[in-house]
Amino acid sequence: METVRVGLAERAYRIEIGAGTIDDPQLFAPYLAGRRAAVVTNEVVAPLYLERLARTLQAAGARTDSIVLPDGERTKEWGTLERVFDWLLAERIGRDAVLIALGGGVIGDLAGFAAAVYQRGVPFVQVPTTLLAQVDSSVGGKTGINHPRGKNMVGAFHQPLAVISDIATLDTLPDRELRAGVAEVIKHGFALDAGFAGWLDGHLEQLLARDRAALAHAVRRSCVLKAEIVARDERESGPRAMLNFGHTFGHAIEAALGFGVWLHGEAVAAGMVMAAELSVRLGVLAPADAMRLRALLERAGLPVFVPAISARQLLDSMRGDKKAEAGRLRFVLLSSPGQSLLRGDVDDATVIEAMAACIKPSARLAVPS
Amino acid sequence: METVRVGLAERAYRIEIGAGTIDDPQLFAPYLAGRRAAVVTNEVVAPLYLERLARTLQAAGARTDSIVLPDGERTKEWGTLERVFDWLLAERIGRDAVLIALGGGVIGDLAGFAAAVYQRGVPFVQVPTTLLAQVDSSVGGKTGINHPRGKNMVGAFHQPLAVISDIATLDTLPDRELRAGVAEVIKHGFALDAGFAGWLDGHLEQLLARDRAALAHAVRRSCVLKAEIVARDERESGPRAMLNFGHTFGHAIEAALGFGVWLHGEAVAAGMVMAAELSVRLGVLAPADAMRLRALLERAGLPVFVPAISARQLLDSMRGDKKAEAGRLRFVLLSSPGQSLLRGDVDDATVIEAMAACIKPSARLAVPS
Repeated sequence: METVRVGLAERAYRIEIGAGTIDDPQLFAPYLAGRRAAVVTNEVVAPLYLERLARTLQAAGARTDSIVLPDGERTKEWGTLERVFDWLLAERIGRDAVLIALGGGVIGDLAGFAAAVYQRGVPFVQVPTTLLAQVDSSVGGKTGINHPRGKNMVGAFHQPLAVISDIATLDTLPDRELRAGVAEVIKHGFALDAGFAGWLDGHLEQLLARDRAALAHAVRRSCVLKAEIVARDERESGPRAMLNFGHTFGHAIEAALGFGVWLHGEAVAAGMVMAAELSVRLGVLAPADAMRLRALLERAGLPVFVPAISARQLLDSMRGDKKAEAGRLRFVLLSSPGQSLLRGDVDDATVIEAMAACIKPSARLAVPS
Repeated sequence: METVRVGLAERAYRIEIGAGTIDDPQLFAPYLAGRRAAVVTNEVVAPLYLERLARTLQAAGARTDSIVLPDGERTKEWGTLERVFDWLLAERIGRDAVLIALGGGVIGDLAGFAAAVYQRGVPFVQVPTTLLAQVDSSVGGKTGINHPRGKNMVGAFHQPLAVISDIATLDTLPDRELRAGVAEVIKHGFALDAGFAGWLDGHLEQLLARDRAALAHAVRRSCVLKAEIVARDERESGPRAMLNFGHTFGHAIEAALGFGVWLHGEAVAAGMVMAAELSVRLGVLAPADAMRLRALLERAGLPVFVPAISARQLLDSMRGDKKAEAGRLRFVLLSSPGQSLLRGDVDDATVIEAMAACIKPSARLAVPS
């Protein structure tokens, strides 16, 4: 087992990474002393892992209750949160409880936000069961729900007490979701760490074959890179923006296609291609490096073209995104694999051209699973 | 004008108290540099003060928009919050905005919570226009909404950038609301400061007659007392509980009567009588001091008896309240005027007897306005 520390002073916490962690009461016990555990999960994950985790939490001394929510991005909205509050109150689970998020990014964001605002805040532990959640969304304290007018528009920064990642739970992850998680792993390499980008070039097939050592390395390296940035910039006023490489475009793609049509990681993959294309057009990235990113994403079975949507519509959508301060768009660009930079002075025409180069009416709307 | 400082390190802020403060752009300017102002108010306050405040904010350099919500405690729920988010997003008001809460406790709690979670948090300024908000709810960073199963069950600690209290706005406050605010002032005296409790004995009629000097003193003294406690215990793990004197009973009374039948301050008044009665029965308070508190509340026209509700029902309701850690009820008791203490070992029978002594089937359900 490996441990990554997120250095946030009194909100510091540990990320435990290994196979079989959800069966180890000693990993959970430090967070549960005398407390009730309230597990939030969904209908896909519950049959696979809920009973095992509940047994572990009980062995760690916690009275344990659980709620099983529907699966999918649509779950990440107020109505579901309301169900969670209703359940917590009906069970008389108070401020002395620890919420446990068992599932992927949707469950982590939703349960984390529930923990942030239930009775003005209760602690929570992330138990991510998807690659995307293990390498990205469970780390850093961003929680929230979607609004009809935009993704993650309502939320809070609420750091978990701990993240306990079980690599073995990735065995049951559908291929399509595994690849969507690989998109965020590739993001970490290309935006932040040339060495890791190189490792990915050499180990992509092992990752996709779910080789445990390769998965553990990818999760650990991603967590180290993300933790280092979060520790410097918890609330995204500066360097944390680099983690949004591909995300401004990606969110707009998700909104244009309709949330849930593509997985988040798939939209981020196409978004990274757009960001690299923009970087080339602005003269900051060599075309060969953009090709290298695109080739890696294609090898991972991720979309690198977007089906027929208007580039203008994407631009309008980006302006409504919360990452646009005072209506001004800021882009995370690449200067080389592992090196990113932030630019706020890009003219609309260049952005539209870069996006248009990545829009193909014939591109697959449905990503094969 | 007087200034009270809330000492919370990087979240420290000033409370400005005076007559005519909402007309002074210089008071607002430090919080608005280059930002948009988004004013949240209600249909009662808007016709009285919105135009004046908007003029002040514009004079301070901020592009200003506003939303006018319905009046009343029922407004403090998710549906209203959703309207605020929808408006903010439609107006493309981003993370660079400052929310301004113009109104009483409901608007302050609601707009403060909107600020806490909109795009994971934007800053806000409290402009309280009721006595209750000026002496209590605008200070300390508690924000939130109600849930059908309980008051303030969903919320956040989110400190304002500043509180700007205009004593002159109390001129238009209905008498009943003024008295409800006086209940919280009395709470501050009796729970925390014998000298202030004595001052209230001597100046209650001036307060009720809206004498500006008396009001300014009551607001300032309340803010000083509350700020001192909040600075020591921002998230209510210890001494801040003393500010809940009368509130555990008060919340149960509000729930039993139906939210909105009594004003919060009215329920707190009857709740303080119950807490004092319990203190006498536990032998920690002299009966004469309990009488003194009751007499002062009666002089203020506040309810000291609760109409026909079952004491058992109140107890059940209190157990569901978030102040009950692990299902155990903790009570803020009085040992003398100005001295309170926390007790977690009170048996149910004594609590029920103390409440029953304050329940009168003939007590007025409708408080005259």
